[in-house]
Amino acid sequence: MLAVAVLAAGKGTRMKSALPKVLQPLAGATLVERVLGSCHRISPDRQLLVVGHQAERVERTLAGVEGLEFVLQQPQNGTGHAVQQLLGPLEGFEGELLVLNGDVPLLRPETLESLLSTHRTSGAAVTLLTARLADPSGYGRVFADGAGQVSGIVEHRDCTAEQLANTLTNAGIYCFDWARLATVLPSLSTDNDQGELYLTDTVALLRPAMHLEVGDPDEVAGINDRQQLAHCESVLQDRLRRHWMAEGVSFTDPASCTLSEHTRFGRDVLVEPQCHFRGTSSIGDGCRIGPGCLIENSQLGAEVEVVHSVLRDSHVEPGCAIGPFAQLRAGSHLAAGCRIGNFVEVKNSRLGEGCKANHLSYLGDADLGAEVNIGAGTITANFDGVRKHRTVIGGGSKTGANSVLVAPITLGEGVTVGAGSTLTKDVPAGSLALGRARQLVKENWTPLAPCQQQEVAG
Amino acid sequence: MLAVAVLAAGKGTRMKSALPKVLQPLAGATLVERVLGSCHRISPDRQLLVVGHQAERVERTLAGVEGLEFVLQQPQNGTGHAVQQLLGPLEGFEGELLVLNGDVPLLRPETLESLLSTHRTSGAAVTLLTARLADPSGYGRVFADGAGQVSGIVEHRDCTAEQLANTLTNAGIYCFDWARLATVLPSLSTDNDQGELYLTDTVALLRPAMHLEVGDPDEVAGINDRQQLAHCESVLQDRLRRHWMAEGVSFTDPASCTLSEHTRFGRDVLVEPQCHFRGTSSIGDGCRIGPGCLIENSQLGAEVEVVHSVLRDSHVEPGCAIGPFAQLRAGSHLAAGCRIGNFVEVKNSRLGEGCKANHLSYLGDADLGAEVNIGAGTITANFDGVRKHRTVIGGGSKTGANSVLVAPITLGEGVTVGAGSTLTKDVPAGSLALGRARQLVKENWTPLAPCQQQEVAG
Amino acid sequence: MLAVAVLAAGKGTRMKSALPKVLQPLAGATLVERVLGSCHRISPDRQLLVVGHQAERVERTLAGVEGLEFVLQQPQNGTGHAVQQLLGPLEGFEGELLVLNGDVPLLRPETLESLLSTHRTSGAAVTLLTARLADPSGYGRVFADGAGQVSGIVEHRDCTAEQLANTLTNAGIYCFDWARLATVLPSLSTDNDQGELYLTDTVALLRPAMHLEVGDPDEVAGINDRQQLAHCESVLQDRLRRHWMAEGVSFTDPASCTLSEHTRFGRDVLVEPQCHFRGTSSIGDGCRIGPGCLIENSQLGAEVEVVHSVLRDSHVEPGCAIGPFAQLRAGSHLAAGCRIGNFVEVKNSRLGEGCKANHLSYLGDADLGAEVNIGAGTITANFDGVRKHRTVIGGGSKTGANSVLVAPITLGEGVTVGAGSTLTKDVPAGSLALGRARQLVKENWTPLAPCQQQEVAG
Repeated sequence: MLAVAVLAAGKGTRMKSALPKVLQPLAGATLVERVLGSCHRISPDRQLLVVGHQAERVERTLAGVEGLEFVLQQPQNGTGHAVQQLLGPLEGFEGELLVLNGDVPLLRPETLESLLSTHRTSGAAVTLLTARLADPSGYGRVFADGAGQVSGIVEHRDCTAEQLANTLTNAGIYCFDWARLATVLPSLSTDNDQGELYLTDTVALLRPAMHLEVGDPDEVAGINDRQQLAHCESVLQDRLRRHWMAEGVSFTDPASCTLSEHTRFGRDVLVEPQCHFRGTSSIGDGCRIGPGCLIENSQLGAEVEVVHSVLRDSHVEPGCAIGPFAQLRAGSHLAAGCRIGNFVEVKNSRLGEGCKANHLSYLGDADLGAEVNIGAGTITANFDGVRKHRTVIGGGSKTGANSVLVAPITLGEGVTVGAGSTLTKDVPAGSLALGRARQLVKENWTPLAPCQQQEVAG
Repeated sequence: MLAVAVLAAGKGTRMKSALPKVLQPLAGATLVERVLGSCHRISPDRQLLVVGHQAERVERTLAGVEGLEFVLQQPQNGTGHAVQQLLGPLEGFEGELLVLNGDVPLLRPETLESLLSTHRTSGAAVTLLTARLADPSGYGRVFADGAGQVSGIVEHRDCTAEQLANTLTNAGIYCFDWARLATVLPSLSTDNDQGELYLTDTVALLRPAMHLEVGDPDEVAGINDRQQLAHCESVLQDRLRRHWMAEGVSFTDPASCTLSEHTRFGRDVLVEPQCHFRGTSSIGDGCRIGPGCLIENSQLGAEVEVVHSVLRDSHVEPGCAIGPFAQLRAGSHLAAGCRIGNFVEVKNSRLGEGCKANHLSYLGDADLGAEVNIGAGTITANFDGVRKHRTVIGGGSKTGANSVLVAPITLGEGVTVGAGSTLTKDVPAGSLALGRARQLVKENWTPLAPCQQQEVAG
Repeated sequence: MLAVAVLAAGKGTRMKSALPKVLQPLAGATLVERVLGSCHRISPDRQLLVVGHQAERVERTLAGVEGLEFVLQQPQNGTGHAVQQLLGPLEGFEGELLVLNGDVPLLRPETLESLLSTHRTSGAAVTLLTARLADPSGYGRVFADGAGQVSGIVEHRDCTAEQLANTLTNAGIYCFDWARLATVLPSLSTDNDQGELYLTDTVALLRPAMHLEVGDPDEVAGINDRQQLAHCESVLQDRLRRHWMAEGVSFTDPASCTLSEHTRFGRDVLVEPQCHFRGTSSIGDGCRIGPGCLIENSQLGAEVEVVHSVLRDSHVEPGCAIGPFAQLRAGSHLAAGCRIGNFVEVKNSRLGEGCKANHLSYLGDADLGAEVNIGAGTITANFDGVRKHRTVIGGGSKTGANSVLVAPITLGEGVTVGAGSTLTKDVPAGSLALGRARQLVKENWTPLAPCQQQEVAG
C-alpha cells in the first residue's frame, strides 16, 4: 500500500497574497494540483492533504479531487508536527508514506517512481530526495556513501567549514516505511531555534536511510516568493517548449512564448514571437502563428495562419487565415479556407467554407453558408436587449459595407445586401436587399455647425 | 555644506545621436535627471551641472530644476578640467563636493548617503566609490588596505601583471573636501596619452584617501553606447520588477515587461507577458493585465482585467473588463463594472456603472449614465470639422448597431436607438429613436457592377 | 580558380519536418541560401550543391540561383561519399575546393575570406576551420602547432583522457587543393562505426594541413534540431541588433525584437519592446516604433510613430503617426503628417499630406488629397463582388461617421459627407452630400423584441 501526504498548511507570508501559497497558479494550475498530479504514475492508494492556513479555502478548491483526504494541522508547528497529524488517519495503515511539499511543484512523475523503487529495492526505513545545488547556502547537507546510504543530515548553521563544502542537500521529500515512522514521530522535539517539530529529525532515528539524487535541481525548487514562482514558471515553460521543439515545432524566439500542458502541436508549426497557448488547444501541421497571438481552448487544422489575434473556445478548419487584430470568441467554427481580417469579431457562429470577413465586422450568433462575403462594417445585431437571436446567411451571399442584419433574420442563398442597409426582414434567395436613403447634394455648401446641419439634413 | 557637481559636458560620440549623451532617455527619464534624482536623500546645498557639448540644449531641458547652476566647460579637456571650472562658482564654499557623472545613472540614493557618511566619519580628504568587476579590463585599479584607506590608483595600462589581478576598480565618483581639492586642482597636468586633465590624479595629492566599495557593480555602470544604455535599462527594469514581486505582484514572464518608477501595484496583481507600464499609474488589487498591454498615466481599481489593449490618462473603477484590442484615450473614466470590448475606443468620456461597449465603437466626448448598452458600430460624431461637442446618453439606454449620434446631442434615460440610425436631434427619455430607410427587395436579382446598382438603389 | 561545394543531401531526421533540413528558414532565408550567401566576398568560379534527400524539392527551391550546379548523392553515405560525387563534375578543375555544410548557416563572409587567404598563403594541401568549444563533447579534436599546422584529428571516442582536454575541435569546413584531394578521395574507407565515408579522414592523407580558428564558435554552429535552429536565430538576431545599436538605434528591450538583414535604420530611432522588422524596410531618423509592431517591406520617413500596428509593403512619409491597432496593407502611401488611428485599415491607397483617419475605417483603393478628414466608421466600398474600383476624395474633404463611399466614386475638393450617408454618385467640389433617413421618435416606448421592432420601424 502507498500513501501520499502533501504538506499544504503554510501561509506563504512572503507571497504577500490573499491566496494561500499552495493555491497560487503556475502555468494554469495551482501549485498543489501540480504536486498531486505528479503522483499519477505511482498510483497511491491514499492521498492526504495536510491543510492549515485558510484550510477551508484549500478544501473548497480541491473538493473535486477524488479520494483526497484533508487533515487539519492547527496550529502550524513544523513539518514534523504536520506529519504527526497523520497518526490518526493512517492508524493501522501498512506500507509506504511518501511526503511531498505543496510548494514544490516541478517534480517529475518519473522521479517519484524512481524514489519509490529505490526505497523498495533497498529495504530502507526512509529514502529521501537530494539535489546538488550550485549555491547550497541555507540548506541541510546530506552525507552519504557511494551506495546511497545516508549517514547523517547536518543543518547549514551546524556545519563545519569542511561540511559546508558538501553541496548535496536535502530536498525535504521523503519516502518512509509508515510503521517505522509512526514509532519515532512522537519522539520529535521542539528543541531548536524555531521551536518547531522537524520531519528531518526522523531520519537520524530511522536506519537504514537512503537517498536518491535528482538529476535536475529545478525539480525540487520550492516556492516562497513571487520571484521563485516566476522562476518555476520559466522552468516549466522551458520544458514544454523543448518538448515541442523536439517534436518538430519551430519557435522564432522560444523564451517569449508560453504554452500550456494540454496544448498539442503538429509538425512544421512555426510559432513567431510573443504567442501564448492556454487550456486545451491543438495546432495542426504547418500552421503559422504569430507574432502576438493568444490561443485558448481552440482547435486549429493544418496550414492555418494567425497574426496578432485572440482565439478562444473556437474551431478553425484547415487553410484559414486570421488577423491581424481579429478575435474569435467562444463557439466560433470556421470551415476550411475562411479569411477573417482586421477588426473582425466572430462569436458563437458557424462559417461555411471559403467565407470572407475581411474588415471591421461583428458576426455573433450567425450561420453562414459557403463562400459568403461579409463587407466591411457588417454587423449582426443579435441582441434585442433581452435575448440573443440568430442570423442565417445563405451560401454565396454578399453583404455591403456598413450593413446591419437585425436578428432573427434569414437571408437565402446568393443574396446581395446593398451598402449602408439595415435589414430587419428575411430576404429570399437570389435577391438584392436595400435600405438606403436617397443621396442628396447641396452645392456651394459652407460647412456648418452640426446643429445647423440638422436643419439641412432633417 | 554639501555641493554636488554632475559632469555633463560630453558628446557621447559612440551613441551616434543628435542628442547629447546625458539627455538620452532611460525608463522615461534622461540620464542626467536620474543622476540628479539620486541625490534626493543627501539634500545638497548646491547643485552644479558642468555642461559643454550642446550646452544650450542641456540647459533648456533642465531649466525647470530648481537651484541647478550651470557651469560651462569649453573645450572639454577631461574630468579634471571640468572640475577646475568650479573654482569660480565655488569660491569661498566650505564643505564637501560630491562629483558625479552624468552618464552613470543607476547609483542608488542609499549609496551616496553611505559615501557621504564614510567620508565624514573618516575625515578623509577624498573618498571614492569603487567596484569589484568581473572583467576590470581598461579600468584603473584601486589599492587599499582593509580599513578602506587608499594607497594608490594605477591606470590599467600602467599595471604590472600582479597589479592587474586586482579587480577593485575606480568608479570615477568622488566625495572631496572642497577646500583641499581646490588647492590641488590647479596643479593637474595634461602629461598623459590623451593630453587631458584627469580628476583621478588629484587622489594621489590628497591624504588620507578612502574608498567605499559598492555591493552591486551595476550601480556604477557608465553609458557610452546604446548597448550599455540597453543594459542599464534592463538593470533598472529588473530592480523594479523584483521590488514589485516582493510586494505581491505575479509576473508570468517578468523579463518581457517594463515598468516605470511611478507605477504602483496592489497585491495579487497578475501581469501576463509583454505588458508595459509608463508614467504615473496605479493598478489595484487582484487586477489581471495582459498579455500585450500598454498602460500609461492611468488608475485602475481592484479586479480590473485588461487584455491586448492600450490605456492612457484614464481612470478605471473596480471590476471593469477591457479588450482585447481596445483603447482608452485621455480623459476616459469608467465607473465600476464596465465592459469595453474589441475595437472600441473611448476618449474624454465618462461611463456610468455597468456600461457595455462590446464591439467596434467610438465614444468620444460622451457622458453615459449607468447600464448603457452601446451596440456594435455605434459612433459619437463629436467633431463638426471645427469644434468637439458632447454626447449625453441617459442611464439604461441602448444604441443599435451602426448608429451615429451627431453631437451636441442628448438622449434621455431609457432611450432605445434603432440599428442603422443617424440621430441629430435630442431624444426624450423612454423613447425609441429611429432614422432608417425602408427595406426594399428586388427578387431574382443578378449582381451588377456598382454603377448599375446606383440605378437600382437611387 | 575556386569551387565551392555545399553539402545539402541530409534529411535532418531530428527536425521532424516535411521539409529537408537545408530548406528550414532562419531569419527569412533558408539555411542553404545563407550558406551560399556567405560566399559572396570570395567570388567562387563554380558553386556545387550536393543534394540527396528530397533532391528535387531542394533543386526547385534553388532553381533561381545563377550558376549553381546540382550534384546528386544517392544514397547518402557520409561526407566523404558526398565529396566523391564531385570527382565527375570537377574533372580537370584546377584550384581550391571549399567544402561547406548546408546546415551551418552563421559563417561570416570575412571568415571564408580568411580561410582562403590562410590556405593560399601557407600552400597547404588542406586548411580546415576549427573552433574552441566550451563543451567539446562529441567533437573531433584537432592537434596543431603554434604556426597552425595540423598534426592530426582524433575523434572524441578515440581520445585519451589527455587528448580530451584539448578543446580545439574540427568544424567540418575545409579548403582543399582539389587536385590533391581528388587523388586521395577514392581511398576513403567505410571501416568505422557508422559504415560511412568521412571527409575528415582525408586530412591525414594530405600534407601539410593547416587550420584557422574562428573567434566566435557560434559561426560554425550546426543545426540538427529545432533547439539549435532557435539558437542560431538568436545569434543572428543578436548580431543584427548589436550592429544597429552601434549605428545609433535604441532598443528598450533588444532581445524581444527581431530584425531582417535588409532592414535599415536611421539615427535616434527608438524601438520599443516586441517589434519585428521583416523583408526590405527602412526606418527614418528619429522614428519611434512600438511596442508590438510588425513592419515588413515598408519605407518610413523621419519622425514617424507607430504603436501596436502592422505595416506591409507601404510607404510612410515623415511625421506620420500610426496606431495603436492599425494596419497598412500593400500599396499604402501616406504623405507627410498623416494620422492613422485605431482600427483603421489602409490598402492600395494614397493619402495626401495631413490626412486623418482616426478611427474604425477602411480605405481601400482610394486616392485622397491633402488634409482630408475621414470620420469614424467611414468605409470605401471598393469591391462589387467581381472587381475592385477606386474612390477619389478631393483635398480638404471630410466624411461623416459611418459613411460609405461606393466605388467607383469621386468626391471633389472640400466636400462634406453627412454622417450615416451611403454615397453612390460623384459629388462636386464644395458640396454637402447626404443620404440619411429622417429621424423618427416614438415616445413612451417599451423595448420590444426585434420582430416587433420591424413593425414599428418598417
